[in-house]
Amino acid sequence: MSLVETIEKMAVDARAASRQLRKAGSSQKNDALKRMADMLMARREEIIAENQKDLSHAEEAGLSAAMIDRLTLDAKVIQAMADGLLEVAGLKDPVGEVTGMWKRPNGLLAGKVRIPLGVIGFIFESRPNVTIDAAALCLKSGNAVILKGGSEAIHSNKFLGNLMMEALKEAGLPEKAIQVIRTTDREAVNILIGLEDHLDVIIPRGGEGLIRFVTANSRVPVLKHYKGVCHVYVDKYADVQMAVEICLNSKVQRPGVCNAMETMLVHKDIASAFLPEMSGRFSKAGVEIRGCPETIRLVSKATPAQDSDWAAEFLDLILAVKIVSNMEEALEHIEKYGSHHTEAIVTADYERSQRFLSDVDSSVVLINASTRFNDGGQLGLGAEIGINTSKLHAFGPMGLEELTTLKFIVYGQGQTRE
Amino acid sequence: MSLVETIEKMAVDARAASRQLRKAGSSQKNDALKRMADMLMARREEIIAENQKDLSHAEEAGLSAAMIDRLTLDAKVIQAMADGLLEVAGLKDPVGEVTGMWKRPNGLLAGKVRIPLGVIGFIFESRPNVTIDAAALCLKSGNAVILKGGSEAIHSNKFLGNLMMEALKEAGLPEKAIQVIRTTDREAVNILIGLEDHLDVIIPRGGEGLIRFVTANSRVPVLKHYKGVCHVYVDKYADVQMAVEICLNSKVQRPGVCNAMETMLVHKDIASAFLPEMSGRFSKAGVEIRGCPETIRLVSKATPAQDSDWAAEFLDLILAVKIVSNMEEALEHIEKYGSHHTEAIVTADYERSQRFLSDVDSSVVLINASTRFNDGGQLGLGAEIGINTSKLHAFGPMGLEELTTLKFIVYGQGQTRE
Repeated sequence: MSLVETIEKMAVDARAASRQLRKAGSSQKNDALKRMADMLMARREEIIAENQKDLSHAEEAGLSAAMIDRLTLDAKVIQAMADGLLEVAGLKDPVGEVTGMWKRPNGLLAGKVRIPLGVIGFIFESRPNVTIDAAALCLKSGNAVILKGGSEAIHSNKFLGNLMMEALKEAGLPEKAIQVIRTTDREAVNILIGLEDHLDVIIPRGGEGLIRFVTANSRVPVLKHYKGVCHVYVDKYADVQMAVEICLNSKVQRPGVCNAMETMLVHKDIASAFLPEMSGRFSKAGVEIRGCPETIRLVSKATPAQDSDWAAEFLDLILAVKIVSNMEEALEHIEKYGSHHTEAIVTADYERSQRFLSDVDSSVVLINASTRFNDGGQLGLGAEIGINTSKLHAFGPMGLEELTTLKFIVYGQGQTRE
Repeated sequence: MSLVETIEKMAVDARAASRQLRKAGSSQKNDALKRMADMLMARREEIIAENQKDLSHAEEAGLSAAMIDRLTLDAKVIQAMADGLLEVAGLKDPVGEVTGMWKRPNGLLAGKVRIPLGVIGFIFESRPNVTIDAAALCLKSGNAVILKGGSEAIHSNKFLGNLMMEALKEAGLPEKAIQVIRTTDREAVNILIGLEDHLDVIIPRGGEGLIRFVTANSRVPVLKHYKGVCHVYVDKYADVQMAVEICLNSKVQRPGVCNAMETMLVHKDIASAFLPEMSGRFSKAGVEIRGCPETIRLVSKATPAQDSDWAAEFLDLILAVKIVSNMEEALEHIEKYGSHHTEAIVTADYERSQRFLSDVDSSVVLINASTRFNDGGQLGLGAEIGINTSKLHAFGPMGLEELTTLKFIVYGQGQTRE
């Protein structure tokens, strides 16, 4: 079979599996998830051996230490994967929920019921543990999934795919509900995103280049975010200590992720009280500051920010800092340079907190809290498969519920339309 | 300015307008809608004169009588447009609704609030009254809209666009919230669907060719349905009289629309009791029947259905009829040939009604009611801007609420992430 035929067959099989899966009860799906967790633990040694093949190739290819770290499956990571599966098993099943029902004047009873999306194409890079996380969320929400991981993790992903299929079979669910694309040929991505009659959604996760490519070329609807250029605005009425802790946490708690702060906006009236202490803390944490001219005057170690810095997603211990004359300037800056991902204000002023909440057009807007809370787990969605910064379907973190849709159901007694 | 520059400028203006519009209160938006209604009535003669230019061109170009009918704006159609505006003004404003709010263990109060999508690109064919309907729904839901109508209605659409801008200005709202593309150059569509940084969604409405073109080429997310191949399944336990009335209504009440029945599936055990009467009624209504071999035996006037007939959206007084051996065969047929649009069962059996409701993967699934009820107005959404048969964002009819999205808002007291 050609690659096109292979992937089309996978998609057709996935559709058939999804038709069975959408009828599966929660206990059966949870049983499969628990079997997967058991299997990961029982066959740990084999997983590590397969992963070793990927690691050897990675070393030969001269991948960076960070890349190799992301690729590694050791006992600890495998334990975390198993725990993750049990966590998803413990979450509420969204399928079948009737979210509303109402009577029409002609006696029709109309309502909406939650159903799985159907077949999901999940395209991701490097970390093989994402294979398990994504598969678990898709399965629990009643969706079949086709996973296309990075070529550097191919041995790990193939083996994990086999284990999941075994667990599905043992649980009496269709094996083809979780399929891993078993080639490193990048053409597989092109084929997958062209299958609009077979797939319901494509979720790409990885670098901006991959995501832009998928968005530009997919005929299947895409849920994605390009990047997170997240801001904290320290208002003139901010509590200085609170602002310092929130900004520090937003920047350094995990700088390489999309909900880390990339630009800090500071009201001019609080700058001299706030910036010296803040920059001391940042300095200790190893954060490089690129500032506007006003910032440079107050922070000795800061270097001048280039215009490109305001739109940059550093994903690193680098921060752009701008002093603004008023709140409007902060809002304008966010609108111009932000990515509609996550924005926070630190203020003790009621009116300003409310204005920020309503005016900022981002998927998560916070008052007096770290940007790092834009996360499905942290916001109470249970777990997340990704974050969407397009407005359609789900704006922000996507959990189980966001992997479903609502269909209309109508109970009649013979009604016809006049 | 080149066409690219013109349309990009429209999009930039629309974004600026949307930022103002999302803060506008319901009363201000309703005021604008009422002014538009008044203006339509007051300047009826001018509208008809502009429309006359389009009609003259249409006649010269030899357009069909049906096309010319759709293009015509007379006093009655204008009255209906004005009534539609007032109806939208009377609907509940979806913007600002907090759909849920919950406390996290760390004290964060997290919730979701309904916001406009932002900027909508609406691409449609022929009927100029759609200009007004679509603009009204976008405005009420706080969205700016760029409208690209069919070239045959260009004079009507331009004039209606001018009136709406005047009304917006009078109501103190940004004029650029509703913009009509003032060229008949089809390249405008290509440009519009490439503006992913400026537009939040594209809604195409018209023939399947237009919609497929937009879906294949758009970088902006698209809400659309290709076609409605809707089925009624007459079960062995159906009430024959009820089935006759529902099928007749589903087929003939308005055959040219997407929620009309295109294929009727009949259980073999009821076929001889049901089909003779049904076919008599269809015959009187001028419906041509294309049937499976079993149907041909029972319906003398029926002609043999070709395989292509099962997937056809006739949009006409033509019906495909198939006799099935059991309910599973009906479900399989719908899965194979259906378009996930609208399906109905007629049955008196409880278990079968529930199975149909849960197993059929369509945006609207009905028990004992006409397929013609898949309509935003009929289902109680107020009015609709279209129907979506992709699973993302809104599956089925889209009203005001479906022109919005939910953003997360978080109230903190200094929380940081551990």
